[in-house]
Amino acid sequence: MILPVLNPLAVEAWSRNTPLDGLNLNRVFPGHAYGSVTERIADAVSRVLLPMVDIVFDLHSFGPTWDFPPAATTHPIADPDLMARTVGMAEAFNLPLTLIWQHNDTAGMFDITAQNQGKVFVCTEFGGGTVGADNLAIYEAGVRNALIALRLIEGKADSPTFRRQKSRQTLETRPSDELKSPAPGIFEPRCSVLDEMKQGDLIGILHPIDSLSAESIDIRAPETSVVLAVASGAHFDANKVVALLARPLKK
Amino acid sequence: MILPVLNPLAVEAWSRNTPLDGLNLNRVFPGHAYGSVTERIADAVSRVLLPMVDIVFDLHSFGPTWDFPPAATTHPIADPDLMARTVGMAEAFNLPLTLIWQHNDTAGMFDITAQNQGKVFVCTEFGGGTVGADNLAIYEAGVRNALIALRLIEGKADSPTFRRQKSRQTLETRPSDELKSPAPGIFEPRCSVLDEMKQGDLIGILHPIDSLSAESIDIRAPETSVVLAVASGAHFDANKVVALLARPLKK
Repeated sequence: MILPVLNPLAVEAWSRNTPLDGLNLNRVFPGHAYGSVTERIADAVSRVLLPMVDIVFDLHSFGPTWDFPPAATTHPIADPDLMARTVGMAEAFNLPLTLIWQHNDTAGMFDITAQNQGKVFVCTEFGGGTVGADNLAIYEAGVRNALIALRLIEGKADSPTFRRQKSRQTLETRPSDELKSPAPGIFEPRCSVLDEMKQGDLIGILHPIDSLSAESIDIRAPETSVVLAVASGAHFDANKVVALLARPLKK
Repeated sequence: MILPVLNPLAVEAWSRNTPLDGLNLNRVFPGHAYGSVTERIADAVSRVLLPMVDIVFDLHSFGPTWDFPPAATTHPIADPDLMARTVGMAEAFNLPLTLIWQHNDTAGMFDITAQNQGKVFVCTEFGGGTVGADNLAIYEAGVRNALIALRLIEGKADSPTFRRQKSRQTLETRPSDELKSPAPGIFEPRCSVLDEMKQGDLIGILHPIDSLSAESIDIRAPETSVVLAVASGAHFDANKVVALLARPLKK
């Protein structure tokens, strides 16, 4: 079963939130049959479609103001058997990054509802920023690799190159891995996604613009880590996330 | 003279338009001394600062929903001597692309006001999408190259690599080089910036989503050209620009 678009109104508006009711589809699962349009879409998916499938691929990309590597992701799952099968499925995409993402804003997400029904659920983040031909080619290779692993199609798994790198890694990230702007100002990124950082390495520089005498502030890696995501150079208020770090998954 | 930020209110709002008066600074030049805040900024630049300089570098980047190569650009200038000096200055940045950009929406732009005062004006577009460490390094090299050419600093011009390419070219683009969406739908980019296209090569595919029976529509290069800019994969209304082509400058 292929659903090219789950929320056409939000896609047309280039927004996470449905213009008609202001709701984010990926925060209202499992939805309500008699709710607003976004809640009804979630309900139809949860109650009608999900019971018909064994495995779900949620194919999308990260935000337009972020750089992010092509990744197959999952949140931590309490059931160790489902967790192992989910990580195995994610790694079968053979993308540059497989990511176990622990964060605190998961209430109402599609994957929780699918996992509550015992389904293997892999969410892909096919890069941030713009969606271009290069990223789409990696996207296609990843989905083909996953379908080959499931024996739904025949072929040999491909290992797509991302920015000159062919390496593969499985990382985990937690809320404490977020780096935030220490003051309001323009963030100058000084690292790229998947860069390996040692403690004290420069992630970026925050340039205050509300005072002519304020000094620029270095933002440094608090420990050995890999750069998971870095925000685009732009003005940020204080205490906003400007980079996400990650570490190799302890199995 | 270095002005790190010309319009801090718009930068803080991540918007082309100043939130206070809704105006785009780069469309209100030469401004008005007794106008709204955006018009007063333009007036101060035009009347106070511009007469003090010989050459202007306007350093910025293209839009967040576009892929665009690092480029030093100018619009066509009626005065052939000023045009030649401007193109020479732009080429001294030694960026992957020097661009002569003819378009119809130039009323009120900074460069026109500067050129009316006889100044050499180079506008740089340091990539589209996100502003990352890689693009900023090319940015710094370009500015350093230009300052070396002006003998303001000492050193040897660098030739920064952009996505594995070290080549340099000077292109021109006109309003007729814009490719537009033939119908509403999701644009799938199938080319990358600086790709060389022959007549009929695939630029992208438009996927209508308002009808289950509508066929996808190929968007092809109308003639031999170079891809100057390509929009991010997203939903577009009909007749919106999704790609810009360019051709080698006839000198």
